[in-house]
Formats: sequence, structure tokens, C-alpha cells
Amino acid sequence: MNCKITGTGSYIPNVITKNADFDQHEFFNLDGSNFPHDNETTIRKFKAITGIEERRYLDENLNTSDIAVIASQKAIESSGIDPETLDYIIVAHNYGDVKSNSIQSDTVPSLATRVKSHLRIKNPKCVGYDLLFGCPGWIEGMIQAQAFIKAGMAKKCLVIGAEALSRVVDKHDRDSMIFSDGAGAIILEANDEETGILSFESATYSFQESEYIYFGKSNHNNAPEEVKYIKMHGRKIYEFALINVPKAMKECLENSGKSIKDLKKVFIHQANEKMDHAIIQRFYKLHGMTPPEDVMPMTIHELGNSSVATVPTLFDLVTRGKIKGQKLEKGDVVMFASVGAGMNINAITYQI
Amino acid sequence: MNCKITGTGSYIPNVITKNADFDQHEFFNLDGSNFPHDNETTIRKFKAITGIEERRYLDENLNTSDIAVIASQKAIESSGIDPETLDYIIVAHNYGDVKSNSIQSDTVPSLATRVKSHLRIKNPKCVGYDLLFGCPGWIEGMIQAQAFIKAGMAKKCLVIGAEALSRVVDKHDRDSMIFSDGAGAIILEANDEETGILSFESATYSFQESEYIYFGKSNHNNAPEEVKYIKMHGRKIYEFALINVPKAMKECLENSGKSIKDLKKVFIHQANEKMDHAIIQRFYKLHGMTPPEDVMPMTIHELGNSSVATVPTLFDLVTRGKIKGQKLEKGDVVMFASVGAGMNINAITYQI
Repeated sequence: MNCKITGTGSYIPNVITKNADFDQHEFFNLDGSNFPHDNETTIRKFKAITGIEERRYLDENLNTSDIAVIASQKAIESSGIDPETLDYIIVAHNYGDVKSNSIQSDTVPSLATRVKSHLRIKNPKCVGYDLLFGCPGWIEGMIQAQAFIKAGMAKKCLVIGAEALSRVVDKHDRDSMIFSDGAGAIILEANDEETGILSFESATYSFQESEYIYFGKSNHNNAPEEVKYIKMHGRKIYEFALINVPKAMKECLENSGKSIKDLKKVFIHQANEKMDHAIIQRFYKLHGMTPPEDVMPMTIHELGNSSVATVPTLFDLVTRGKIKGQKLEKGDVVMFASVGAGMNINAITYQI
Repeated sequence: MNCKITGTGSYIPNVITKNADFDQHEFFNLDGSNFPHDNETTIRKFKAITGIEERRYLDENLNTSDIAVIASQKAIESSGIDPETLDYIIVAHNYGDVKSNSIQSDTVPSLATRVKSHLRIKNPKCVGYDLLFGCPGWIEGMIQAQAFIKAGMAKKCLVIGAEALSRVVDKHDRDSMIFSDGAGAIILEANDEETGILSFESATYSFQESEYIYFGKSNHNNAPEEVKYIKMHGRKIYEFALINVPKAMKECLENSGKSIKDLKKVFIHQANEKMDHAIIQRFYKLHGMTPPEDVMPMTIHELGNSSVATVPTLFDLVTRGKIKGQKLEKGDVVMFASVGAGMNINAITYQI
């Protein structure tokens, strides 16, 4: 028994916001102090570190669960399955549906229920739940789906990562430029091949790290104290990720029985280009190597960091041949890896 | 391999709010219309249907994750395990941490991360995540924990249900009198006995039922449209539950290989006394019987409906001999059952 991806889908929102669109923002540091330079410099430095040139935001009339539905429809279509045969619908997110111009997260009913309802699935034995695990939520959903398959509780699962970070950003925070919106979905099915999910790793670092990413007040000193936004301590996250992510990836690869030389692609959470390159460098260095060219497909330049959506979206785009110079072939060994709020880290070794 | 409960804990908040405390509330129907009678009558009718005389609310300075920690500490203590040996911390909730006088749900980091951090657990392989599944979330967490154990991914799991519905109620809605706050936790461990979790059922009804419990505007016509509260269509839920919950319980019991005559206790979600009695009547009727006296321990009179917390709290209180006339003995076959937002239904047959 193994677990194989049989369908992929994603939704890339329509609204393109370019770095220049932040030029008139009033940015402050976390402590409310001013930056020592003008916005043009701030944005140039931001671009140099993160690689982000533009990001996507949801149309005003759409919510996270709406785009989860669209990505799911594409995944179901590409798999060819009858949606009534799904055993689980797992939606990874962190903020629920936050309507445009609202500060409330709407999570009742769960986003999984909303997706199932919009897909018009009748079968009550198709169980829908939401999973909160920071940015690594979609990979964790995959790990949970394979557990249900291995435990004999499921044969077909729809695993979705969907988020609209544009609805929880503080416009006075430079980090707001990182965040974007999106949804990715896959169908994971039980099968008898030897390929599929070969190994996985999952970890929660909360002893000192729990508040590295948090919900906090605006950087603008005059903003209402009680209204919270997504906030992060970027430098601490960078250092934490560089120490712990390559180790987790190495352990995951070792448990798969495959060699680093078998590894064709690493689909890593699109958080920060510099950080992702440093992680992959260190991961290969742990094996006495340097990363092969094109091993790490990237979307961050145009899509930013859409949290749980980045990895399934990236995989969908490469699967569909939509990223230049990137393609997958049957038998290829790949890795999914992520790091985010919690702080949570996870990885999956997967053979196409 | 089976899954056994080795520790239980709960937290019952300090603030007691009696039915009479609602006497000065201005109640309206969902459509904003007035009730045809005075509050005394409304409250008397409410008590006659739901059985609720009083409910518990969190102290102002506490949040959902804080009481999840307290319940967890008790469960860990009663199990005697070293918390560093936990493989999973699963927190079922629906609204996250909502601070007193705030309308925002705080879910980043996850409540599981907050619990793990407060328990001072260092082991990063102890993975914490949050599960949103309506009121049946705690039972679903148990089902997921046993899946991880059966799949060989875990040996010891902490499964928590914690909620503070007092932070999301509309004071102009009569249904606000139903809701309360609380936390319950259990330790589920792999063991080699034949007892433990014998069977389970889980279902999501979303084709017509997804909005039976939802997040909606105040019943007061002049309240701001954009501020949302927990809302429900009580009559529809009642009819839905009466049709579907007894069926799910019957199927769960059948899959356990045990007979209805073996069943010693049913720990059912404390939603509404009349509904719970109607469910248990119909469940026994499906077996040509009437329910034995004391088969269904109840806490709703004093504790109200604390969502995901009701079932683990009830089980903890009975386990500790804190409910008059109720006790458990080794070998007893019991059932956990719940219904709530989604609409989700689940059940577990368990042998002590």
C-alpha cells in the first residue's frame, strides 16, 4: 500500500500588486520607529532579499474557501475521480475566511465544509476538517491523509492549502510586502505501486520559537492596539530555518532509502528567496555537494508567499509544465519541504 | 495494537452565569423581530427545552489556550507519562483565542503550539496542530490520534477540546444562553490489550446542512452588520440530529462487535437536554429497547454547551467519580458521540 498523487490544481488570484505599489505606504519598524531611509530604498532592499517583485491578492468579492473550491475542482478534474468517492477533504489554512474590509476570521462551518458544499458532494462519509499548522499546513495535511490511508480509513483524499494573507497584513509593516493569496490542491490515493510517499518528517519547535510568527498590533503607533495583524521576527526565523530545515530534509531523505543523487526536485515553501537558497545550499552541503541547477523551482518572484498554498501551487505548475525549464518524469524522486508559524517544519520524500 | 485512554483532565471556568442573569437582555429573533412574550417566559421555556440552569464563562484574563493547558496538565498528571514522550498534541476548537472585548480570533501560532510551549515540552518531534470540526472536534481528534497510532506514527497523543463560546455570543440572541466555556483533555496511548477504541464513525453533512450553525450578524437590527457571532438554526439542527445521530451510533456500535446490552454509558455532546434524550431514546429504539437509567451522564444543567469541551469534560468528571450516581469499571463498554457545526457527526465505541 502506498499513497500516490493522482491530480493537482491551483488558483492564482487576479489582482497583481507590484513592489512600486507600496511606494506611498508609511512603513515603521515593529517598535514603531521610522526607517532610516526612503521607501524606494526599503523596497529595493526588500526585493534583493526576498526576490519578490509582485504578489497576488484576491478579488474583493472572493474568500479563501472560494479559491480552495476552484483549486479543488481542477485537482479533481485532472485526477478523473468521482468526487463522491472522496473519503477526506482536508483544508490547511491559518486565518479562515476573512472578508474584505473585515477583521474577523470566519471558521464556522469549517472551510472544508464550505468546499464540500460548493463541490456538491452528497456522500456524508466524505469527512471534511480544517488543519492549522502554520505555512507547513498543506504538507502536514498530506502526512495526515497518508496516515488515514495506511490505517485503512481512507482510499482517496483531497488535500488543500488555501490562504488570503492580504486580509491580515499591516500596511505599516514592511513585511506586508512578502505576503500574498492563493490556493493549491491535490488528490492523494491509495495504490499498490512502490512509488508515492516514501517518507516524511514533521516537527514543532515551541520552546523558544512559538512567537516568531504571531498576531500583533500595527507598527503604526497611533493604530488601535486591539486590532491584530500577521507579524514576524524575520531575522530569528531566518536563523532558525537555516539550522533546522536542512536537518529535517536530510532525515526525511535518509528514511526514504533514496540517495541525494536520486533527488530531482525540491518543492520548498516560498518564504524568502535568499532563505530558500541558503536552506538548499546547506542541505546539499550536509551531503558534501552543491545543489544541481534547476533543482528548486521558484514562484516567489511573481507570487510572493501565499502560506500553505505555495507548495501545492508550485507542484501543480511544474506538473502542468507551466514553469520554464522545469518538468517532472515518472520515477522522479522529489521532496516537499516547509517551515512556518509554530514554528513547524516538515518534509515529504515522494516518487512520481 | 490498540489505543487506550490513560489520563483525563478538565477545566471548569470560575464565572457562573445563571439564567436569571439574562433577565435584562434585549432578545430578538434571527430576523430582528421581537419575542411575543417577556424575558421571564423566554428563559422559562429555554430551561424547559435545554435543561440549562447556569453556564460557566472564562475569567476575563484567560483565553481558550490557557484553559487547554490546565486541562492538559491534569490529564498528563493522571496518566503519569513524561510529557516529553508525547508524539502529538491535537487541539480541537473552532474560534481560536478570542481575547475578552475583542472580536478577532487569534490562531497564529496554533493553540497546540501555545499549549506545548506552556507545558515546556522541548522535544520537537512532539507535533502540535489544531483541528476545526465543529463541536465534534474532540472526538475527531481522538479518531485522528488512533489513526497515527495504527499507522505507526505515534505511541502517545494528547487530545484536547477547548472553547470559549462566551467570547463569540450575541447577547441579543436567546441561543446565547446555551453556550459556555471549558476545556477537556485526554492522553491516548498505544497498548497491546484488546480493550480501548473498538470502532468509530465520522461524517460530514454539507449538501443542505452547511449553514445550520454559522457566523452571522447580531439579532439586533441596529447592531453593526459586519460584526459576526455564533448563530444557529435550532429547529433544523434538532430534526437533523434526531435522524442522523442515532443511525451513526448504531453503525459505530455494530462495527465494535459489541451488543447494545454491553453498553454501559453514552457520553454525548451536551447540546440540549431534550435533544440528547430524544437521540438516546431513538438509538435504543433502533435496537427495540428503552435506555437504561443512568446510561447518559449529563452536565448540561450546570455547565451548558461548551462545544468541543463537553465530551472530554464529562468523561473526566465521571472517571474521577465527580458525578453522583455515575461510575466506570474496567471492562465497561462506553460510547462517545457528538454532533455540531459542519454539520459533523461522530462516535467512538470504547472499552475501559
